[in-house]
Amino acid sequence: MKMLIPTMPEAELQRLRHSAPALEFLVARDRQEALALAPQVHASFSFYQTELISAAPQLRWVQTRSAGVDSCPFDQFRTRNITLTNARDIYGIQLADHTLALILAFSRQLPLLFRAQQKEQWVSRHTFPPGELAGQTLLVVGLGGTGLETARRAAGFGMRVLATRRRAGEPKPSFVDALHPPEDLHRLLPEADWVAVCVPLTRHTRDLFSDREFALMKQSAYIVCVTRGGIINTAALLRALEAGRIDGAGLDVTDPEPLPAGHPLWSRPDVIITPHASGHSPYADARMLDLLCENTRRFAQGETLLNVVDLEMEY
Amino acid sequence: MKMLIPTMPEAELQRLRHSAPALEFLVARDRQEALALAPQVHASFSFYQTELISAAPQLRWVQTRSAGVDSCPFDQFRTRNITLTNARDIYGIQLADHTLALILAFSRQLPLLFRAQQKEQWVSRHTFPPGELAGQTLLVVGLGGTGLETARRAAGFGMRVLATRRRAGEPKPSFVDALHPPEDLHRLLPEADWVAVCVPLTRHTRDLFSDREFALMKQSAYIVCVTRGGIINTAALLRALEAGRIDGAGLDVTDPEPLPAGHPLWSRPDVIITPHASGHSPYADARMLDLLCENTRRFAQGETLLNVVDLEMEY
Repeated sequence: MKMLIPTMPEAELQRLRHSAPALEFLVARDRQEALALAPQVHASFSFYQTELISAAPQLRWVQTRSAGVDSCPFDQFRTRNITLTNARDIYGIQLADHTLALILAFSRQLPLLFRAQQKEQWVSRHTFPPGELAGQTLLVVGLGGTGLETARRAAGFGMRVLATRRRAGEPKPSFVDALHPPEDLHRLLPEADWVAVCVPLTRHTRDLFSDREFALMKQSAYIVCVTRGGIINTAALLRALEAGRIDGAGLDVTDPEPLPAGHPLWSRPDVIITPHASGHSPYADARMLDLLCENTRRFAQGETLLNVVDLEMEY
Repeated sequence: MKMLIPTMPEAELQRLRHSAPALEFLVARDRQEALALAPQVHASFSFYQTELISAAPQLRWVQTRSAGVDSCPFDQFRTRNITLTNARDIYGIQLADHTLALILAFSRQLPLLFRAQQKEQWVSRHTFPPGELAGQTLLVVGLGGTGLETARRAAGFGMRVLATRRRAGEPKPSFVDALHPPEDLHRLLPEADWVAVCVPLTRHTRDLFSDREFALMKQSAYIVCVTRGGIINTAALLRALEAGRIDGAGLDVTDPEPLPAGHPLWSRPDVIITPHASGHSPYADARMLDLLCENTRRFAQGETLLNVVDLEMEY
């Protein structure tokens, strides 16, 4: 069997070969080369655009490099029943770090204090009110890889952690106070001081946060999103911020993305924008290679793969 | 017996009276009024300057409003064996929140990203390297109230937590990987990716971090301090930063304090300055009142007080 892969350092390629000696690896430098190799391949890492799937009649498995698979041509995958595996375990740690960084930046008033530092002003601590996370309620929307890591960290701060999860009946981690099905979202929003959006973008979660959801949140609440831009409706978020219906938003992902200069979100003092940087970590590449090697070994030996995407749920 | 207290809201005064009906409370609006009342009092909340202690021959107990008591006239307290109690339990939670806010701000590159937001620039995530806390080593210098809360939070991020504590033989909390006596500091510094200074300022800890200590730290390490400015020698810190011997510093306290405009620490991109704001929390006043009432009750009934300061160690 043959597997299509992008160019990678020789040492990594050696490890990959070693993990599945029975497979032949075809290296493509770009999409064009990948397309030319497609007719031969049974598996593909990283390449999965529509034309490639069409050109690869023997394709049985695709491994993505990302956790989010919202750009995947799901119709083709469903029709041909191609197995799709993503990289969801690779990013949870750093996405959770980033989520907590944004929450703490708001709680401890860092945006205001950064601006004061630029002006070399030792502002009186009585002119701004830093918060405290202990006892506050964090709502983790989507207790998957990122949600779990976010909840674990929040519990260390003494926060009350509520979470939604599609499989709400499965065992609840000790660091989550209450676990609910996704349909409870509207009932939970009024309780949250902080909302951490940890769901992937799918046809079911697009615009999950819009006018109605912001209206249900506390006026003092913040929303943080590090997964995908389309989950929060940008126009509705701006309306909510302008009307003071919520206190602020920390966004590592936006819609549109990249956020163009001049967009009103950039200059709001109640918004922190970071440029889709939450997935970055010095250790992500090593974790990706581990996952790729393990799944390639499993594929070659006919074992069940890790991180299989539900083609109906699209994550 | 009589207790000197500053002006406080009537409801709080009622609670205080209720906690120790046998005590008479003398309210002073300022230091001058306090000084005039001093000859009558057996206890004092918040007032403890040298002249007041001298003018209060019957004084047996002072409760401070702060955790740090470095401005206390210890010679007088020792000579007269006056009991000093501080507010160390009141501030640990928010000081630890602030410490983690500064650590995460550095780890996730927030200073750089705040500047990019001001310029409305979606910077490429390949031009800056966010970090990841899992697996990194945090050295908590001083596992007291603030150190314990800092360690608890760091453990939630999967950090390896080392700590120093004067009473190193006492039981080690589960979220601390290794506990050492203060004399081990120099041996521990080379292991740390992050150094959280959680000791109080005393004659023993002034300039605890100077040229030698920065030389022992990793080049990639950061130091964070939220307790008192004098613990880090400012000139030595600036030398270390300029020479690239450490990667950065997050300081909520400085020496001098307030940091004057034009001071070189303000404009360094590898330094975050916040204006002694870490002790602020919406819940601090309520915790302070709880402690004051409980200690006042204990004083009136002759019981052992909470948070007694060791007059030799000066914390």
